[in-house]
Amino acid sequence: MRTGSVRCAAIVPAAGRGERLGPGAPKALRTIADAPILLHAVRGLLDSGAVDLVVVAAPPAHVDPQGIETTRAMLAVFGPAVRVVAGGDTRQESVALALAAVPDEATVLLVHDAARALTPPELIGAVVDAVLGGADAVIPVLPVTDTIKAVDPSGTTVTGTVDRAGLRAVQTPQGFRREILLRAHREGAGGAATDDAGLVERIGLPVAVIPGHVEAFKVTTRFDLLLAEAVLAARASVPSA
Amino acid sequence: MRTGSVRCAAIVPAAGRGERLGPGAPKALRTIADAPILLHAVRGLLDSGAVDLVVVAAPPAHVDPQGIETTRAMLAVFGPAVRVVAGGDTRQESVALALAAVPDEATVLLVHDAARALTPPELIGAVVDAVLGGADAVIPVLPVTDTIKAVDPSGTTVTGTVDRAGLRAVQTPQGFRREILLRAHREGAGGAATDDAGLVERIGLPVAVIPGHVEAFKVTTRFDLLLAEAVLAARASVPSA
Repeated sequence: MRTGSVRCAAIVPAAGRGERLGPGAPKALRTIADAPILLHAVRGLLDSGAVDLVVVAAPPAHVDPQGIETTRAMLAVFGPAVRVVAGGDTRQESVALALAAVPDEATVLLVHDAARALTPPELIGAVVDAVLGGADAVIPVLPVTDTIKAVDPSGTTVTGTVDRAGLRAVQTPQGFRREILLRAHREGAGGAATDDAGLVERIGLPVAVIPGHVEAFKVTTRFDLLLAEAVLAARASVPSA
Repeated sequence: MRTGSVRCAAIVPAAGRGERLGPGAPKALRTIADAPILLHAVRGLLDSGAVDLVVVAAPPAHVDPQGIETTRAMLAVFGPAVRVVAGGDTRQESVALALAAVPDEATVLLVHDAARALTPPELIGAVVDAVLGGADAVIPVLPVTDTIKAVDPSGTTVTGTVDRAGLRAVQTPQGFRREILLRAHREGAGGAATDDAGLVERIGLPVAVIPGHVEAFKVTTRFDLLLAEAVLAARASVPSA
């Protein structure tokens, strides 16, 4: 993390409820190895050395009356490198609200899923470098390793096998030149997109890809929590890995 | 496992080298919690109570001179419930060679990836039940949870976001009525298919889907080995899960 001017700001929408993890706290407050998922995610961003400011969109008051204060308390350890704002009812709305809190001087913007809590700092740095190197928009991706089939609308019968060679599984952080992300949210926000790069695609601008990392997986189920604990244990036993 | 007649036989092609796990023993002989991957996979099939015979296709002599003997020794604990034959140079060839060793009386055939070593016995039973219930061919599948994008042939630029709602990630075991699998291998084997259900699709017959299981993941990388050890540890600590 650099002090002073903000060249790169990362936006973390963390207003979701995480129903797939079962009843309980909001998703970003669930813990891996005793620390909330969101804390892991924010620490990874700042550990990369490439991110100057993290703007977190917390659950809005009508969803969780204590959400913003709880989130601020949890992230107070990072001082002014983290700002917490109220998120919205959808992921896209939360990103837009966080965008409004980014200082004008930031030229590189990241959007990162809090659920990708263990994303290696090296990957975060590589995304920032790709934008600094000239990409308007860049996403980390992995090859699709399972056989993928299409099913009929009822979901009971196979309609064909998809050629996975040309497919990629998308991770975060996704990186953008500031004006590209602002324009995509302004002009591309008409329909539903599952990610911010999708908004950029919708306005017809190119999205580049770089290699992702297996440890940047999304923690959405109890099974993923098990994996996350195992990854942290392995990192602790081999500090240089 | 029933004794006596063979109603359901499972074929396990285990002749691959597993290069993605790094140099060393063939993939099926790598260990999870001190037991070879193949041993876990075969045990799961027999533990389901739905499989009467497992036919394993081991690395052929020209690939690994000791492959068949080593595999037989490892699986000797299961007695006549397991047969080991020489596999071929491709997965499809190994399945065909194992098919030839299945007794005529077997009416339900499974094809299972050894790499899906920790597949819960309940899932294996569900696949067999689906075939006994009338399906010609059935595969376990999971929803696709990552955003999926298509890339250009160079793999550097996104060409579009794929609607994942109609896509499924395919697991094994895949289940077949005996005559359907034999016909698919006879008539559909002209081109490359990534799975046996793909051969059935190619000859124009329906393939049904049932819900898969997260623990039926494929162990192909060191990262997957880490996850596999964590799953076994969790099972050991909660025996009833």
